[in-house]
Amino acid sequence: MNPLFSDRINDVPRSFIREILKDALAPGTISFAGGLPNRSLFPARALEEATARVFVEQGTDIFQYSQSEGLLALREVIAARYRQRGLSVEAEHILITTGSQQGLDLLGKALVNEGDRVGIEEPGYLGAIQAFSIYRPRFCPIPVDENGMDVSGLEQVLAGGAPKLLYTVPNFQNPSGITYPDDNRRQVAEKLSGRGVVLVEDDPYGDLRFEGQPQTSFGQLLPEQTVMLGSFSKIIVPGFRIGWIVAKGELMHKLLIAKQASDLHTSSFLQQVMLQFLTDHDLDRHVEGICKAYGQQRAHMISAIDRHFPGAVRITRPQGGMFLWAELPAGLSAMRLFEKAVKERVVFVPGDPFYIGKREVPTLRLNYSCVNEELIEVGISRLGQAIGELLG
Amino acid sequence: MNPLFSDRINDVPRSFIREILKDALAPGTISFAGGLPNRSLFPARALEEATARVFVEQGTDIFQYSQSEGLLALREVIAARYRQRGLSVEAEHILITTGSQQGLDLLGKALVNEGDRVGIEEPGYLGAIQAFSIYRPRFCPIPVDENGMDVSGLEQVLAGGAPKLLYTVPNFQNPSGITYPDDNRRQVAEKLSGRGVVLVEDDPYGDLRFEGQPQTSFGQLLPEQTVMLGSFSKIIVPGFRIGWIVAKGELMHKLLIAKQASDLHTSSFLQQVMLQFLTDHDLDRHVEGICKAYGQQRAHMISAIDRHFPGAVRITRPQGGMFLWAELPAGLSAMRLFEKAVKERVVFVPGDPFYIGKREVPTLRLNYSCVNEELIEVGISRLGQAIGELLG
Repeated sequence: MNPLFSDRINDVPRSFIREILKDALAPGTISFAGGLPNRSLFPARALEEATARVFVEQGTDIFQYSQSEGLLALREVIAARYRQRGLSVEAEHILITTGSQQGLDLLGKALVNEGDRVGIEEPGYLGAIQAFSIYRPRFCPIPVDENGMDVSGLEQVLAGGAPKLLYTVPNFQNPSGITYPDDNRRQVAEKLSGRGVVLVEDDPYGDLRFEGQPQTSFGQLLPEQTVMLGSFSKIIVPGFRIGWIVAKGELMHKLLIAKQASDLHTSSFLQQVMLQFLTDHDLDRHVEGICKAYGQQRAHMISAIDRHFPGAVRITRPQGGMFLWAELPAGLSAMRLFEKAVKERVVFVPGDPFYIGKREVPTLRLNYSCVNEELIEVGISRLGQAIGELLG
Repeated sequence: MNPLFSDRINDVPRSFIREILKDALAPGTISFAGGLPNRSLFPARALEEATARVFVEQGTDIFQYSQSEGLLALREVIAARYRQRGLSVEAEHILITTGSQQGLDLLGKALVNEGDRVGIEEPGYLGAIQAFSIYRPRFCPIPVDENGMDVSGLEQVLAGGAPKLLYTVPNFQNPSGITYPDDNRRQVAEKLSGRGVVLVEDDPYGDLRFEGQPQTSFGQLLPEQTVMLGSFSKIIVPGFRIGWIVAKGELMHKLLIAKQASDLHTSSFLQQVMLQFLTDHDLDRHVEGICKAYGQQRAHMISAIDRHFPGAVRITRPQGGMFLWAELPAGLSAMRLFEKAVKERVVFVPGDPFYIGKREVPTLRLNYSCVNEELIEVGISRLGQAIGELLG
């Protein structure tokens, strides 16, 4: 190990997609591996109009250095959306970030000392593991599945002393697509209440619900201890890199210091364009269009799986978001399946990178947001073929 | 101290401008305190045209997630500018950052373990001290003045063992406006050569030279050990938050991991707009216009100082950049002067925040980029009055 580099940078796990999928795939390979929103649903024309208006109507402030907190009017719009959902959030509780990945980095900066315990979901979002790894915590994985967070797993972690923070994606989780049911959320909140743990509710997919009813936010169940992360990446565009943190009091003050040290502020120009888009357009209506498309793609994928996968494979049936999760019979490795699938010209993400220290797991992530009915049919059929071969 | 927060966040020094200048100033107060580029020189129209072309000519890739390295074509343009100056830089050596403040954060992430020694200029750039503080180094200040970096000060630091990195702003430094002369750079490079220190050459102001000849970059004098930071903030606009790091080999690889963990990537849309602007317009010609304006403002400020300040005040006479530095007679405090100056309706930044652990220093920073001849005349006259009172 080169002594020049920090210990922390050597601890960061690498991205599976960068590391393994960077090799050229055979022409005609169908990918369920990505985690991208569907570009055909980007409101390109509306953003073009919003940008043109910003150039005409705004002064040169949009090009100048600006406040680390972010544009006040944009923070007001975001806060109002929370209040519509019954959450008590004001503009002063919103810090605009350069995507919600930065929210994770700022939380690491403000909260995590080396060796502090950080609770994470298992399986969990790799980007969060990468972001927090920089601050050298001890990760405490807690299993999640269609019943939500495993409460006895949570109790076990708490028995070792309160972790500094607990990271959750309770709506349509990446990678598994699962959503914590309301009663599970209440149990989790009860276990954490008064224990000095910051619960991070990362919610990039929550608006992308195709069916069923929204569940109660931890921001309502555990308001004093919950930090919420939000993002426009999945509901407008990711390329603007605009997200936010909802936090209060001294924690907000510390996050602001961290933001200033990290990049001074998020692009003032892009914040103004986003504000203009939100002012001129009905975001809820735009999101309805995304939900309709993704809901159909999800239905096609589940239908194809039901027809093409061996019956021994279990899958989640998410009510929203971009991913579903499949589990091979015990003892099989999704990484081995991946090797076979590449040859069949279909790819996905094996479960391994979503666990801390587990390898050759039998689970895998399938993305349906970027594939149409035809690709889903052909790709799932190929994958079913590969699974059949693996099962022997 | 609330045990919830990390030790590091409690170590970050606060911004003087945020903390002290946030109080309302009397109407008519003239400010030499800012560090902003002059907004009247922003190429607003050209950026509007570039943005419109991007919307028309580019596909939806501009809104999608993109590579952590940044847009290849933009990295090629930046690398070509270095090659014009005789530096051997290729696109693969460029990592696009969300402003060069983020470059500092990524260097901290990739290099600094808690307790590592980090050499910094004294006086030095507060933003760098803030960014590195997150990684809890031991700062080793080395004096700089019009003769460049104090070589015996550098030797003293090196005698304690090689620091992990040495942070420099060798062209028109913030806060002092000084530039290291070529022979001083050679001496510094010689002392560092082969010692395993990463020299960071942060150069936001280097293009803003009004007179004299460019000095040799550490990238030429010490190519194996130098990391260069660059930014469009002072030569195009800061509100796009686009800067870059020039690094090679394994260090680039580690910085890329740090970038990915921090915010995935810099806005793909803004990178494309910046590329379009650079393709359609002559940046050097635009920069000539900025230099002409700032050069005149600098000349007005020096002329006013020569007429209004007591002779005992020493100033730097920078050949470029946005700042000059004044030194009161020994024993006087610029912080006390600040209190008097506020009453006279003129403000500046006292030297204190640019030093580690020194307080009530006799030095101060004056910004001339955002004030016209008339404001300079009136403001410097008021400040001269306040200095006269302080001298008694």
